[in-house]
Amino acid sequence: MTPALPLEEPDLFDYYYNPPGSAPGTLGIEPNAYPTEITLFDYGPEHFSRCERPVFQDCLAQVTCENSVTWVDAQGLGNQALLAELGRAFGLPALILEDMVNVPQRPKLEYHPHFVLITTQIVMARPKKGFWTEQISFVLGKNYLVTLQEEPTRDPFEPIRQRLAQNVGAIRSQGADYLCYALIDAIVDNYFPVLETYGDRLEDLEDEAIERPTEATLQAIYRLRRELLALRRNIWPQREVFNALIRDKSDFITPEVLNYLRDCYDHAIQIIDVIETYRELGSSLTDVYLSVMSHKLNEVMKVLTIISTVFIPLTFIAGIYGMNFNPESSPFNMPELNWYWGYFICLGVMIVITLFQLYVFWRRGWFHRNKILARRPSDP
Amino acid sequence: MTPALPLEEPDLFDYYYNPPGSAPGTLGIEPNAYPTEITLFDYGPEHFSRCERPVFQDCLAQVTCENSVTWVDAQGLGNQALLAELGRAFGLPALILEDMVNVPQRPKLEYHPHFVLITTQIVMARPKKGFWTEQISFVLGKNYLVTLQEEPTRDPFEPIRQRLAQNVGAIRSQGADYLCYALIDAIVDNYFPVLETYGDRLEDLEDEAIERPTEATLQAIYRLRRELLALRRNIWPQREVFNALIRDKSDFITPEVLNYLRDCYDHAIQIIDVIETYRELGSSLTDVYLSVMSHKLNEVMKVLTIISTVFIPLTFIAGIYGMNFNPESSPFNMPELNWYWGYFICLGVMIVITLFQLYVFWRRGWFHRNKILARRPSDP
Amino acid sequence: MTPALPLEEPDLFDYYYNPPGSAPGTLGIEPNAYPTEITLFDYGPEHFSRCERPVFQDCLAQVTCENSVTWVDAQGLGNQALLAELGRAFGLPALILEDMVNVPQRPKLEYHPHFVLITTQIVMARPKKGFWTEQISFVLGKNYLVTLQEEPTRDPFEPIRQRLAQNVGAIRSQGADYLCYALIDAIVDNYFPVLETYGDRLEDLEDEAIERPTEATLQAIYRLRRELLALRRNIWPQREVFNALIRDKSDFITPEVLNYLRDCYDHAIQIIDVIETYRELGSSLTDVYLSVMSHKLNEVMKVLTIISTVFIPLTFIAGIYGMNFNPESSPFNMPELNWYWGYFICLGVMIVITLFQLYVFWRRGWFHRNKILARRPSDP
Amino acid sequence: MTPALPLEEPDLFDYYYNPPGSAPGTLGIEPNAYPTEITLFDYGPEHFSRCERPVFQDCLAQVTCENSVTWVDAQGLGNQALLAELGRAFGLPALILEDMVNVPQRPKLEYHPHFVLITTQIVMARPKKGFWTEQISFVLGKNYLVTLQEEPTRDPFEPIRQRLAQNVGAIRSQGADYLCYALIDAIVDNYFPVLETYGDRLEDLEDEAIERPTEATLQAIYRLRRELLALRRNIWPQREVFNALIRDKSDFITPEVLNYLRDCYDHAIQIIDVIETYRELGSSLTDVYLSVMSHKLNEVMKVLTIISTVFIPLTFIAGIYGMNFNPESSPFNMPELNWYWGYFICLGVMIVITLFQLYVFWRRGWFHRNKILARRPSDP
Amino acid sequence: MTPALPLEEPDLFDYYYNPPGSAPGTLGIEPNAYPTEITLFDYGPEHFSRCERPVFQDCLAQVTCENSVTWVDAQGLGNQALLAELGRAFGLPALILEDMVNVPQRPKLEYHPHFVLITTQIVMARPKKGFWTEQISFVLGKNYLVTLQEEPTRDPFEPIRQRLAQNVGAIRSQGADYLCYALIDAIVDNYFPVLETYGDRLEDLEDEAIERPTEATLQAIYRLRRELLALRRNIWPQREVFNALIRDKSDFITPEVLNYLRDCYDHAIQIIDVIETYRELGSSLTDVYLSVMSHKLNEVMKVLTIISTVFIPLTFIAGIYGMNFNPESSPFNMPELNWYWGYFICLGVMIVITLFQLYVFWRRGWFHRNKILARRPSDP
Repeated sequence: MTPALPLEEPDLFDYYYNPPGSAPGTLGIEPNAYPTEITLFDYGPEHFSRCERPVFQDCLAQVTCENSVTWVDAQGLGNQALLAELGRAFGLPALILEDMVNVPQRPKLEYHPHFVLITTQIVMARPKKGFWTEQISFVLGKNYLVTLQEEPTRDPFEPIRQRLAQNVGAIRSQGADYLCYALIDAIVDNYFPVLETYGDRLEDLEDEAIERPTEATLQAIYRLRRELLALRRNIWPQREVFNALIRDKSDFITPEVLNYLRDCYDHAIQIIDVIETYRELGSSLTDVYLSVMSHKLNEVMKVLTIISTVFIPLTFIAGIYGMNFNPESSPFNMPELNWYWGYFICLGVMIVITLFQLYVFWRRGWFHRNKILARRPSDP
Repeated sequence: MTPALPLEEPDLFDYYYNPPGSAPGTLGIEPNAYPTEITLFDYGPEHFSRCERPVFQDCLAQVTCENSVTWVDAQGLGNQALLAELGRAFGLPALILEDMVNVPQRPKLEYHPHFVLITTQIVMARPKKGFWTEQISFVLGKNYLVTLQEEPTRDPFEPIRQRLAQNVGAIRSQGADYLCYALIDAIVDNYFPVLETYGDRLEDLEDEAIERPTEATLQAIYRLRRELLALRRNIWPQREVFNALIRDKSDFITPEVLNYLRDCYDHAIQIIDVIETYRELGSSLTDVYLSVMSHKLNEVMKVLTIISTVFIPLTFIAGIYGMNFNPESSPFNMPELNWYWGYFICLGVMIVITLFQLYVFWRRGWFHRNKILARRPSDP
Repeated sequence: MTPALPLEEPDLFDYYYNPPGSAPGTLGIEPNAYPTEITLFDYGPEHFSRCERPVFQDCLAQVTCENSVTWVDAQGLGNQALLAELGRAFGLPALILEDMVNVPQRPKLEYHPHFVLITTQIVMARPKKGFWTEQISFVLGKNYLVTLQEEPTRDPFEPIRQRLAQNVGAIRSQGADYLCYALIDAIVDNYFPVLETYGDRLEDLEDEAIERPTEATLQAIYRLRRELLALRRNIWPQREVFNALIRDKSDFITPEVLNYLRDCYDHAIQIIDVIETYRELGSSLTDVYLSVMSHKLNEVMKVLTIISTVFIPLTFIAGIYGMNFNPESSPFNMPELNWYWGYFICLGVMIVITLFQLYVFWRRGWFHRNKILARRPSDP
Repeated sequence: MTPALPLEEPDLFDYYYNPPGSAPGTLGIEPNAYPTEITLFDYGPEHFSRCERPVFQDCLAQVTCENSVTWVDAQGLGNQALLAELGRAFGLPALILEDMVNVPQRPKLEYHPHFVLITTQIVMARPKKGFWTEQISFVLGKNYLVTLQEEPTRDPFEPIRQRLAQNVGAIRSQGADYLCYALIDAIVDNYFPVLETYGDRLEDLEDEAIERPTEATLQAIYRLRRELLALRRNIWPQREVFNALIRDKSDFITPEVLNYLRDCYDHAIQIIDVIETYRELGSSLTDVYLSVMSHKLNEVMKVLTIISTVFIPLTFIAGIYGMNFNPESSPFNMPELNWYWGYFICLGVMIVITLFQLYVFWRRGWFHRNKILARRPSDP
Repeated sequence: MTPALPLEEPDLFDYYYNPPGSAPGTLGIEPNAYPTEITLFDYGPEHFSRCERPVFQDCLAQVTCENSVTWVDAQGLGNQALLAELGRAFGLPALILEDMVNVPQRPKLEYHPHFVLITTQIVMARPKKGFWTEQISFVLGKNYLVTLQEEPTRDPFEPIRQRLAQNVGAIRSQGADYLCYALIDAIVDNYFPVLETYGDRLEDLEDEAIERPTEATLQAIYRLRRELLALRRNIWPQREVFNALIRDKSDFITPEVLNYLRDCYDHAIQIIDVIETYRELGSSLTDVYLSVMSHKLNEVMKVLTIISTVFIPLTFIAGIYGMNFNPESSPFNMPELNWYWGYFICLGVMIVITLFQLYVFWRRGWFHRNKILARRPSDP
């Protein structure tokens, strides 16, 4: 995610990888990454302080303090020196820091003696543009939490910073694990509005595929399926991470917070349920589209067939009487041309043939135009 | 589910979610929710009392009584104060109450020290409209049961209230767990009539797709598949809940009632079996529809081709003798026009060509109209 | 299954269910069910007795006898009083009797202190009509076996009754578990002729789809897939039942009979294998059918195109010389009409155009009629 | 498999089953089965003897000998008496002998106190005919091995008999379990040439479907998919058998031979991998075929449309000037017919119309013939 | 992989197998295999030596040395004697050497008392040609590592050899297990550029299928799906190997290196995720292609239908007035021909008919050309 082109279509292949053969622990700083900005929150039931661009020596002194929780809220991956300093300050091994900085990674959970590392993805809806993802890493220690996001501009955490500052709810009287849960909960809840836009798009596409399918309809269905695949690839490993968190019972997370995390896990399952349902619907919408197209072809061919089969025999009869056989050479050469009622009989025969054909078509039901149901059948 | 539009098509996305970042335990009261109504049943082998709009202090006194079962039957989610009072009276944590009130949730089971929470969905058939769902939560304690439904108007529990009042069967001599089972059993059995309507709709669509497919047929198939997906998303987590109930052997459920619950579980499996079968049939019906459409196109094209190929050569011959080459300039210029039998020979040639073409088409089987089987092949 | 319409098409939805909210243990007697008939077999290595319409008091005296096996062979679900008496005589709880009488149920296995309950389905081939199912329940006690079938008319057990009466093989010297195995084995082996008819139907449909596909072909393929789905829904839970029987090592089944039951389990797996293969073949036959249809459309369109493109230019030329431009007004007005060889040159040009077009079509391979392989490619 | 028609197409349904209700242990001897031929090999590091049509009393004396391995190599299922004698000689229970003789059975593994029974299938490639299967059973005892094949004519074991006779490699110094492994290894390795022919056929079908698809192409694809399904049904249970052999650690197989069997298991996994890949490719080839067909239809329709739309307006113009309105009745009646340049102006208008239409078609790219890639794109 | 045709399309069937029945441990040396070249690296924190074409006696003396790691880097499978000598020098059993030399094998992991054998595949991107695979085997002992590759020319290990020679990072101070990890990591990371080319090809095919689909498009989609299947068959067993390595905790791998291997495993999972997503997209691209083709057919048919239905009635009218009914025989024979305004009225009727038809087509939307979206809808 770069500031220059923040809304462009993500590539199909979007994992970060170091050049094969490079030593482990290499930090891949992209040239157009956001500059790193770090904010430090320190709070307890009774106190709250917020410090931007902190000096880490001061911070670490606070981390050692027992009845105080420290949240290092880092954003932007552009400043290698600052990130390395952050890593040293909190004792993060090189491989860990690499996973936090070389984005995107598959969401994962790793236990370390002094902390737990959770790497996951934030998903945010973009108006008319599917969604936008960014990586976030959590380093959860005994009474501190370090978070590292890709970008400083968009995140769903502002309500939580406000709850911290204004001491809303129980958040200030709880530990770092509760803060971590609150952030993860915000990430998971953020999927729901994204899914809601997909549900709306799917319903629009249903209407479009049935009422006015164009070539763009199938492209849109294809695009939707592609985005849902990406979304599934995103939430699926998060579900595994939450499951591992709940099951493994780490020292850094109290049983009470585990209970809250179970809620996050339930939500992740809900999200996967919805995505799978949407994917199946997207797949059967393709069938609907193809059948509507084939129905339209049928209609076009019917028009051609009716017009052709009605007029071709008539034109043949007109052609017969346009022949120049010489009535004077023989009494058998087209005597009809000289009959008194010849022309009217000829027209009469044509009318009879036409009526007969129209009757046959009517019997076959070719004039019965299938009304396209403009509204869904279960509407009132 | 709102009283204003109770029968409208449910949206594709139908899970409740709080705004991301909001504190856990927030009750989301929808403005048009039904007002909360609470009825209290208290019964034992020998006594039965029913009290509407109870004062909770009185109720809780009864709950403590050993040989009496209390059922708090709450309906409607519109009254936040009353719901909060209910929660306090039975000691429900904020997170639990949130799950009961913020509907719909994915069905789930949670064990707590003093009670078990079961959240599930009631499914009821709607005439011609698929089905209608509503959430119900069970809080099952030692000798009490609290149920909370979305709406007061429709539920499948009336027969159970009557069995309680009239002391039919063993229900009055059993504990709260048996009451809970009886309610769950009614919920599960309620799926069967819903499935029966789907079976009927599928059979109607079979006939329609084969005999008189219109564009609306495929829409109806698509709609059916969409509703079956929704139904599966509904029953699947219920199965998990029943399985967990049976496997986990909680203190609040006696072995005898567990045996009954195994029956519910068997029924849930049956329901899933049927849904999966229906979904596969719906998918292969789409193939049938597409093939019938392509068969119809074939028929239309055959008509066009027969008429065109018969008359186009004849029209050409008529065109030949409509040319104005001057027989007087040369004896080789269209002498046929002056032949004695010229006209009849010309007509004869046309008839021969026509018969030959008709013979060729007959040999290719183009006149063999495939009868559409109006009845299913295994009917008598 | 009713005697009045024994061969009608089964409905898609075919599970029994009580009205939601009814008390457990309710026996659902259908008005047109067969009257219940009970036969009692009592046998040991040395003795064999058969008694129709037994008085149960006498029977139960025999059950207590150690070296004698009692088989209560009940058929027909029409007589509620008799069924209830049977239940009381063998101490069957209400819920068990309900599962035995309210048919059909999903096959299942339940352990009880004094007996094992096995509920399963008998499948029998019907000439040209798919298959026909009926429920059978086994109550296997220490030295007795109670079986309850839906109908007295059709079952695959006659050879076993004869082996009992005539003391063929080891059956008289074995216990009730061996009898139970022998009956189950007959049920499982009964699937094979059913599958064989499906294999034959599938091969006929293969030939039909390739050689002479009509609209009825696809209906037949669809019907086959629907019946195979029903068959799979039938055998799949039976496999689970056999697996549970083998794995759980109940007291009522000796290790030797367990060995025999392993054979039944192997056969059930074989049956599922075959059904899955047939289902995949049915699905790819649909592709073959659609492609043959599209091939036929291609052939029809080729005929139309050849005839049209050959004759349309010729007709145009004839039209040219049918125009009435007045050669007398100007020497440039259609002087060809007065040429000495005009008519023959005109015909010659037409022949050249025709030959050129036919050559082009021949080069494109449009005259190469694809022979339809009447025989399968691997036939000799 | 019968000698009379050894190469015929196998039926879809090909499992053996006894009539339902028959006693277990019934031997089903087919009338045209091969006569049974038995060869006895007896060998050790130092000695080797081969005896055809052995007398079993002599053989069994040798079996008791400790440092000697006996291989009873029986082929053909036609001689019931001889097979029964073989069964008695090696103490095989009736149910075991039934599984060995009533072919084909699903591959399986059974442990018995004195031996292990392995039933599996030999698969051999047939020129142009898919493959041919035959059942083989292994009865592996402490120092003897009994094998029973369906037919004496074709098996992949000749190289092993030669290695035994010529004392090549370690085979003579190993036990009966090693011999059993060597035979199983030959069976598994025999799949590879079969798969190779399928790979070749699939590549030929790829070329055919793209370059010159006929109706026979899809039949061949369908046939290939059908045969791959049969092959998978064949190897899949063998994989289970090998897995059980490795996992269960029987007394009859030394750890060293278990190591070798692990190799067989790896090969079975490889074979399943390849079959699954081929099946997916076969399925997507159907898509390619259908799309090539639809492309051909497009081409045919384009030819028709170009010819028709070019000539139909021209023919209309010619028709106009073929009308007989009388120029003498009115100066407005077709005065063009008498113009000096009338005919040439008319022809000129026709040429202009034609060129315009051809330009429009050229702009739409209808003359751009899509070259069919005759070679695969990744070829050099 | 042979030097003569290094870039040719790999066959569908590409596993090595010995002729059925051959003794285990046979080395299959292909005639055109690369000659074997062996390089020996010996290093520790303080020393580094590199020796080409080593004499093994010298080498093995070094292997015994405790604080030194030996890497025998063998490439090419052409020299049977040298490979056998290598096997003897490091005590490799015949079956192991066979797996290393008879390529390709399915990736696998085997534990032996003195070493671990890891067999896997190197995948390298080829320009425009999919990818190219080669087998590599690792024999990891206490302080030595033997690797055997198919070819000396292409491998991703050059950066590692340089890191060794130049003492970059921690590699010289770690054991043989770390070297093994570094090589495996390079192999896994090598998949990412391959996947990236597939992502690009898929995006190109998306554009092509929507904007300018030709027959070659579907072939390219088919080819892509075939190559992704091959890639999946390649990475899937590697994932299993890594999983087994991590889970089984061998003596030859320190916990620290296990941690690093967990990273390789995570990457393998990522790769499989991406491949599965690409495969689903490839499958739905086929739908898009078919629908675009059917849309094009619709467009062609519309042109034909518009032209035909406009001109056919007009030509019929012109034909009528080209008939030669004799106006002199009767006043009813085509008096229009002599009307003063006859010709103009006739033309006027034709114009009215044409305008009416065009209006009808316009109302049906046939002139509304569906613009093909040239750019993807979510582009800015």
